[in-house]
Amino acid sequence: MSNWVLEKRSFDSKEAAADGNRFLCANGYMGLRGVVEEAGPSLFPAVTLAGVYDQYQDRWREPVNAPNSLFMQLSFNGLAMTLGETEAVSHCQTLDYRHGIFQRETDFGPVTVSSQRFVSMAETHLLADRYEMRFRSDGEMTLIAGISTDIWDINGPHLFDWQFRAGEALSAWAVTGEKRITVAAAQCVSLDFEAEETVEQRASGLFRVLKRKVKAGDTLTVSVFSGVYTSLDDADPVKAAERLSLQAKEKGFAACIRAHRDAWETIWERCEIVTEGDEAAALALHASQYHLNCIAPRHAKNLSIPARGLSGQTYKGAIFWDSEIFFFPMFVYTQPEIAKSLLRYRIETLSGALKKAAEYGYRGAFYAWESQEGGEEGCTNFNVVDVFTHRPVRTYFRDKQIHISADIAYALRSYYDITGDRTLLKDGGARVILECARFYLSRANGHVDSEQADFADVIGPDEYHERVTNNAFTNRMIRHCLESALLLKDIFADQPEAFTALLQEMEYEKDWQLLPALLGRIREPRVKNGVVEQFDGYFDLEDCFLDTVRSRLCDPREYWGGDHGVAGTTQIIKQADVIAMMALFPEAFTDPEIDVNWRYYEPRTEHGSSLSACMYALTACRVGRLDEAWDLFMRTANIDVVGGGKQWAGEIYIGGTHPASNGGAWMIAALGFAGLRMKNGKPEIHPNLPKQLKRLRFPIIAGGERLMVEVTPEGGKIVQA
Amino acid sequence: MSNWVLEKRSFDSKEAAADGNRFLCANGYMGLRGVVEEAGPSLFPAVTLAGVYDQYQDRWREPVNAPNSLFMQLSFNGLAMTLGETEAVSHCQTLDYRHGIFQRETDFGPVTVSSQRFVSMAETHLLADRYEMRFRSDGEMTLIAGISTDIWDINGPHLFDWQFRAGEALSAWAVTGEKRITVAAAQCVSLDFEAEETVEQRASGLFRVLKRKVKAGDTLTVSVFSGVYTSLDDADPVKAAERLSLQAKEKGFAACIRAHRDAWETIWERCEIVTEGDEAAALALHASQYHLNCIAPRHAKNLSIPARGLSGQTYKGAIFWDSEIFFFPMFVYTQPEIAKSLLRYRIETLSGALKKAAEYGYRGAFYAWESQEGGEEGCTNFNVVDVFTHRPVRTYFRDKQIHISADIAYALRSYYDITGDRTLLKDGGARVILECARFYLSRANGHVDSEQADFADVIGPDEYHERVTNNAFTNRMIRHCLESALLLKDIFADQPEAFTALLQEMEYEKDWQLLPALLGRIREPRVKNGVVEQFDGYFDLEDCFLDTVRSRLCDPREYWGGDHGVAGTTQIIKQADVIAMMALFPEAFTDPEIDVNWRYYEPRTEHGSSLSACMYALTACRVGRLDEAWDLFMRTANIDVVGGGKQWAGEIYIGGTHPASNGGAWMIAALGFAGLRMKNGKPEIHPNLPKQLKRLRFPIIAGGERLMVEVTPEGGKIVQA
Repeated sequence: MSNWVLEKRSFDSKEAAADGNRFLCANGYMGLRGVVEEAGPSLFPAVTLAGVYDQYQDRWREPVNAPNSLFMQLSFNGLAMTLGETEAVSHCQTLDYRHGIFQRETDFGPVTVSSQRFVSMAETHLLADRYEMRFRSDGEMTLIAGISTDIWDINGPHLFDWQFRAGEALSAWAVTGEKRITVAAAQCVSLDFEAEETVEQRASGLFRVLKRKVKAGDTLTVSVFSGVYTSLDDADPVKAAERLSLQAKEKGFAACIRAHRDAWETIWERCEIVTEGDEAAALALHASQYHLNCIAPRHAKNLSIPARGLSGQTYKGAIFWDSEIFFFPMFVYTQPEIAKSLLRYRIETLSGALKKAAEYGYRGAFYAWESQEGGEEGCTNFNVVDVFTHRPVRTYFRDKQIHISADIAYALRSYYDITGDRTLLKDGGARVILECARFYLSRANGHVDSEQADFADVIGPDEYHERVTNNAFTNRMIRHCLESALLLKDIFADQPEAFTALLQEMEYEKDWQLLPALLGRIREPRVKNGVVEQFDGYFDLEDCFLDTVRSRLCDPREYWGGDHGVAGTTQIIKQADVIAMMALFPEAFTDPEIDVNWRYYEPRTEHGSSLSACMYALTACRVGRLDEAWDLFMRTANIDVVGGGKQWAGEIYIGGTHPASNGGAWMIAALGFAGLRMKNGKPEIHPNLPKQLKRLRFPIIAGGERLMVEVTPEGGKIVQA
Repeated sequence: MSNWVLEKRSFDSKEAAADGNRFLCANGYMGLRGVVEEAGPSLFPAVTLAGVYDQYQDRWREPVNAPNSLFMQLSFNGLAMTLGETEAVSHCQTLDYRHGIFQRETDFGPVTVSSQRFVSMAETHLLADRYEMRFRSDGEMTLIAGISTDIWDINGPHLFDWQFRAGEALSAWAVTGEKRITVAAAQCVSLDFEAEETVEQRASGLFRVLKRKVKAGDTLTVSVFSGVYTSLDDADPVKAAERLSLQAKEKGFAACIRAHRDAWETIWERCEIVTEGDEAAALALHASQYHLNCIAPRHAKNLSIPARGLSGQTYKGAIFWDSEIFFFPMFVYTQPEIAKSLLRYRIETLSGALKKAAEYGYRGAFYAWESQEGGEEGCTNFNVVDVFTHRPVRTYFRDKQIHISADIAYALRSYYDITGDRTLLKDGGARVILECARFYLSRANGHVDSEQADFADVIGPDEYHERVTNNAFTNRMIRHCLESALLLKDIFADQPEAFTALLQEMEYEKDWQLLPALLGRIREPRVKNGVVEQFDGYFDLEDCFLDTVRSRLCDPREYWGGDHGVAGTTQIIKQADVIAMMALFPEAFTDPEIDVNWRYYEPRTEHGSSLSACMYALTACRVGRLDEAWDLFMRTANIDVVGGGKQWAGEIYIGGTHPASNGGAWMIAALGFAGLRMKNGKPEIHPNLPKQLKRLRFPIIAGGERLMVEVTPEGGKIVQA
């Protein structure tokens, strides 16, 4: 079982932010950061809600954190037992990836506190905690247990007009500033001991105060059950939260945790990658699959996943291309209903994309770079703060990263290719692809004096180079989008009238004619000695080492990109770009083509994004660079085991979990090591098993069939599950 | 005469750099900065040569400074008499604008030094100085007079392998590092006294040392005659310099200065603007006309004028659009042979423009933004240094300021319109216009899904906003360029075969068909409440006050432009842009149109370039805003009277004279106050005389006729001169 458990046997408040991510519990509805019960805002506790956003004044819109309804603070003989403040003899905390259970045990000397808690995978709105105190001396204990409204927010506050109610359950609720959404939490406790109990309403929340005398050797246990609802979930979220808390209490902690564990077992049955040969790799894969699964929107049919999951408010809780390119593959191959939810989110937010295109003077669908509810663009024009002047710096992610629409079309097409299911296309997906293609028609620039067409002034995946022309990745994705649009006619060949009617209704007839014309005109990238140029003029930039570029930094927190950044004028790139293209279109490139590009671009890549290593690993597998693939795989899969990573972009905090890497780990194992691909509606494998692994086995659903992929050094096979 | 003389009755070494510009003497071949004879490099003495460039290592290419062959250092009783180091009782220096004569008088106590010097307008290669010493006590004087090779360079050194020769003339010569051009200076002296004379060769040059005893009341005079040649002028530049020095000595100082004064009188006869009513304005106009005339390439037929004239090496001594848009008008209307030289420079450097276009993947002629000899692009990709990191910042002047080609076509067309002379067009000018138009054909981007065409990713005159789309000025200039290209057929209607042959020879037939098609497609600027939008999206930028933007500076030397600059994300602009368009196409806009745009843009303009005020003044005249026009006129015309101005862009020194303002002063007086325009080959005037002036009179040549324009408050007329 050791390869299922993350353990840390120390505490350092400087690491609390990173640990809050590594030890995250979540269930797709909410995320509970991995900090102890008594933690105050300086340790970044948070219950982050999926899909609930708020903007305070002119700050960034971001997800709303619910109050901390598992708050507990023990005092013994008047002394607070607070990790990080009170000296502790020892502290250990663990996260069980198999079942999504966080445990802590802290020996404060006179008393040892141990707890076990989870965000229920069986009950969407339930948090629960079993908190045990073992006393080593006689004395008086005071336990404060309640709902803390002292919330850590990056760009808050977001909750106003707090109200409280105390009965068998305590409850606290407030409304968001912008949209007046009610956010409510209730909690009740069950004790295995008697205590003098009072309820106190303080500035920081509503609390039960439990007091009693204890004797050395006493062990007292409190179970806390908390319901969390918003008015988006229920007309009376306070009541709903109270009801759930009481029901859970009635059921008891043991029954609640059993249901939660069973739910996790069902998830693992559908997606677990089993490996043999390397325990660290097994742990890292479990961690990756855990982190991606725990934030999947199982409770909703039209929700996607933020780039930092539910680990906090970083990146505004927004949906990026990470969803379609990095999260989507594991889900579509193992739990297609979740993949469908991610895509339904895009289908239902098409209006936001149409609006954004119009705002920039284009037609069709230009999806938000950082999409919030309703498809609203959360990305501002200023995403970086200059470390020298402290002034915001104009960045172009919002207006120039046009590949986003094609990324969505790519996933819609993949969904059809892998599941064989047309319903999503029929039910809005085809319209999305057509509107994305229409966007590119209006964005394309033809040459007045030649047949060529450019996509000028764009940003590709490598964001360090802003406002480039003919980014190879972007142009390739756009071609695929146009091809997918044209393919729709074949997909719906049995319903020609319906398809014609759709085109008519969309006033698409003229655009339909333009699609093949544009396809034939898009400028092909320059290729030099086999290397595809990342964008027009890339090869003319300064060619230098990563370390040279790094040595030019005047401040370690400087932003590397743009004209002022150290990378912007060089060939050093942030992340896979040409290589990402080759990873996404494996059949369009030969092994030698991929190899020469890999060798050119890898040393020039900072891997400054968690989206990078996975693309290099996939292509490394493809060309048999298995040692490099293994290193990149471990780097990808371990990202939330190790924690850390880039915590700052300029002066902006960007820490959190890394679902794209988590999804990337699955991709490397399944699409890289096993070489899984769809061919004419059927899965096939082309194994590239690194020497570290003796066996690799994982279930998939493809073309409607439940299958098991199994790879060993001797070869591989796909069998009925 | 007071309105012909600039006088300064003090000395401050901190002002020496600016004074060196204000007191400049020049004759188009070379410029002699206005610093005293004994000045060392810290006071920026220089003899800057026109059209001779050199690059040292990887620094900026810049003009070469010749050695200082008028160097003199007096000592009395062993004490050096050095302005700024030795205490002086008084110092006065003057510049006579009428005759281009610099005088200084310094009372050092025991001796007063006064001198009179000039760069001969009659003898291209001649410098001369008459240096007088009046002694007040007995003692021994030592005068060192010679050629100092201790040269002030911004990006030097440029001269290597010094050689010296001493005869009746002293001479020194060296070669430039890059192209091995020999630069030679010779000098000889004529004394009205006897002295012990030795010649000393030192590390800093070759010098005559003159010693003698003097008595109180003695007045001794030395006349120095110096020839300056390069191997571009003469196969044996050393001999040529020596010969000229000796000839001049033989002729004598009085004869030399007489010829020089006569030459200036001839210039003034052809161009002097006579005003009555405001002495300060008269002085400022004299200063402006002096500064522009003294750098005009009278000795050459194919030379243009650097943006900072011959006042030093600032801006790499390069030719900017200033030549065609700001210098050209005065010359074409008064001394068309000089206007012709400016344009012949462009015609003869067409190959450089063809090469630059090809380098960027375009066809036709993309002229250098900073043109050096041969049309070589002197502009680098990094023109600003970040004041915080000291790193060079990528700017886009070189690659995006595409209006330069249209500016040249505009001047070629104006030359024809004003002179009626077709020879320049016939002799290469038509080819230049056609190649410029061809460049725009290949630069234009048509919309794949509509009839519109954009000029995307450009920089207009307002350089603070980089990489914009559809800059109104640029698009308008391009339209004019295309129209001028099409008009060539009419201009050469009497020689249809020759014109057809030209098109054939240029392989232009297909492009010729595309010209009218593109003309009909160029996107018109958005107009909001009558205000023409400077570029797509300009109105969406932050609209704020100049002072607000200024208050955001963290360092006074910060560059304002680009994404990092304080202006880049606001509507604050560096200089006239939409208004420059209206000034250049006065007949295309009505008075109310100009007025509403003037009122919008003027408060949003920093006037951070010397090219700005003149455009605002011209349009202010047009709409009767004569108070504002007068203020802007005085600001423009006084720029090199007052001196100063912006001395720094980031960490780059940009001081020098301001020929564009000098030309602008003529434009305001002639085109603004008198309202001079050509209509169907004939000049006409539309006077807008400010109340400060009682009379305005100036000669012009238009349509081949010598005319006199005269304007009084009662009205104006054009009469035969």
